Amino acid sequence: MPALTALTNHQVRLAARPVGNTKPSDWSHTSEPVAEPSEGGVLVKTLVLSLDPAMRGWMNEGKSYIPPVGIGEVMRAGGVGVVVASKNPGYAVGDHVYASLGVQEYANIPESEFKRAGLVKVDLRVGSATQWLNVLGMPGMTAYFGLIDVGQPKAGETLVVSGAAGAVGQTVGQLAKIRGLRVVGIAGGPAKCDWVVKELGFDACIDYKAGKLKEQLRDACPKGVDIYFDNVGGEILDTVLTRITRGARIVICGAISQYNNTTPVQGPANYMSLLVNRARMEGMVVFDYVDRYPVAIAEMAGYLKTGKMKSKEDVMTGGVDAFPATLLKLFSGENFGKLVLQVATE
Amino acid sequence: MPALTALTNHQVRLAARPVGNTKPSDWSHTSEPVAEPSEGGVLVKTLVLSLDPAMRGWMNEGKSYIPPVGIGEVMRAGGVGVVVASKNPGYAVGDHVYASLGVQEYANIPESEFKRAGLVKVDLRVGSATQWLNVLGMPGMTAYFGLIDVGQPKAGETLVVSGAAGAVGQTVGQLAKIRGLRVVGIAGGPAKCDWVVKELGFDACIDYKAGKLKEQLRDACPKGVDIYFDNVGGEILDTVLTRITRGARIVICGAISQYNNTTPVQGPANYMSLLVNRARMEGMVVFDYVDRYPVAIAEMAGYLKTGKMKSKEDVMTGGVDAFPATLLKLFSGENFGKLVLQVATE
Repeated sequence: MPALTALTNHQVRLAARPVGNTKPSDWSHTSEPVAEPSEGGVLVKTLVLSLDPAMRGWMNEGKSYIPPVGIGEVMRAGGVGVVVASKNPGYAVGDHVYASLGVQEYANIPESEFKRAGLVKVDLRVGSATQWLNVLGMPGMTAYFGLIDVGQPKAGETLVVSGAAGAVGQTVGQLAKIRGLRVVGIAGGPAKCDWVVKELGFDACIDYKAGKLKEQLRDACPKGVDIYFDNVGGEILDTVLTRITRGARIVICGAISQYNNTTPVQGPANYMSLLVNRARMEGMVVFDYVDRYPVAIAEMAGYLKTGKMKSKEDVMTGGVDAFPATLLKLFSGENFGKLVLQVATE
Repeated sequence: MPALTALTNHQVRLAARPVGNTKPSDWSHTSEPVAEPSEGGVLVKTLVLSLDPAMRGWMNEGKSYIPPVGIGEVMRAGGVGVVVASKNPGYAVGDHVYASLGVQEYANIPESEFKRAGLVKVDLRVGSATQWLNVLGMPGMTAYFGLIDVGQPKAGETLVVSGAAGAVGQTVGQLAKIRGLRVVGIAGGPAKCDWVVKELGFDACIDYKAGKLKEQLRDACPKGVDIYFDNVGGEILDTVLTRITRGARIVICGAISQYNNTTPVQGPANYMSLLVNRARMEGMVVFDYVDRYPVAIAEMAGYLKTGKMKSKEDVMTGGVDAFPATLLKLFSGENFGKLVLQVATE
């Protein structure tokens, strides 16, 4: 490895607040020399970055569960990397870590930022770097705590999950199967639906692009929907509301169909079904469960090891400069499994 | 009292399923001779009838928490009456009862229908006939179980209730005050708002007709809204969603602003605030709590007796034939307190 200071760090920064879909002019591509870590800090070389629907929200101004990315700042992104320089006794060169690295080739993390960045060591014998961004990472934790804590699944119930072939959806469905539920996915197109049923073992999968969602839902859920894990919002949420059972739980995890809206969000017109069915709709943010991640990771790692759970990542290449184009795939539904950008190899 | 068979029973029946607001042609006014009760049954003379927002839903076709009123059937309505003939040892002539009597002067209830009609004796020493339709009746029970069980109030929290001068709203707010919450009502017009604050002791009341709801809400709830008890839906629900706190509970009790819609219901566009705030929106139907009514009634009767709680009924006259016109007052917001129709005196 050459001297650190001879290296260049390529970065992608937010140049403008997007209106609707992001476009090239919303980004700037910058580079700067790599610096030594400060006292107590670490320098991490990015290997893989996670691309998440929530990123679109981070680009908007205004109050949310996390502050927006500032104009001119490196775009926020979680990733797995390798420590290439350390001035902290807790981290050695060669250690693999997960952190909010940002869309850049090298992340210099001062000690004061360890907590905010969510810096943790990851063991690549337990899962691959991309699995640490998927089942063992934020999407997996979201699936786990959203399903278990908010959804409160009981064996024999029927669960429906949208975005079934996506990062969160695939794990929600598999976890629910392990817990003895009937599991019905909603995904776009026959290829994703086939995969969800044949590879992941869901009981059925509805292709929302094929139309007649209401009829498909009725056929796939003859006893109604006890838990709906919603990643998409919009029409699909509204239709599922017409099929919920008494005491149903709707987990609001995301609303990807609405994130690029330039018109107001489409509210669920059938929300009064909550009254008729004494049902609840509840939001969740994965960061609230950070203290319990180790327990969930241990459980998930066990399922991966024994083959009870599969993990699919859609790994794109092209380095950090490919980030803007890769992000668009999420919102067009082109990705198949957890969308990951490979930035470097070791 | 003349012989029963010499009496005529005037009734109001549903003639057509209304589109939007109900109109005179949606009703038919009929009369028939009064009959002796069947073996085991009772004949009840209607004294006062309850007029409720939910009635509008009962007139629509389709699945709900209760079957719709059939075309040609006597309109469903709860009421307090006096037993005028009995072939059941449990009920004596002169007993006062609450039941689903219907919009008619006499209700003949066979024993097989006692349960479905919700027939119970009421003690007019504990509360007046109109109070048994208000604080001690279905609106009071809705307020009690919606607030306590679904809202889960804690002292020091801020509660907002819409329809604050209505039957459910007045009791929700007073109960929440008794439990040590900051209570903010939403009502239409300065007279209702004044009454809610000065007579019922709410901390503040927002006049939604005065505009700037968002600003009024911010000023009245500087720490945000921990519990929102929603009777109205529409714009007000959507605006309150922008002010909820982390872990907030939204009790979905009604949506009177939407019941006469001929366009689709307005879904809450700001529902993603549930995610950001890890909040929940939950529906409730009072009938689920029927086993616990006695406990709630005893508590409420105590508050009435000691003056800790006030009970306001808006009593209209004109007999059953005045029912159609009286019902319209509910949806125009003209009523002030629980709307009741006086059908007869003893």
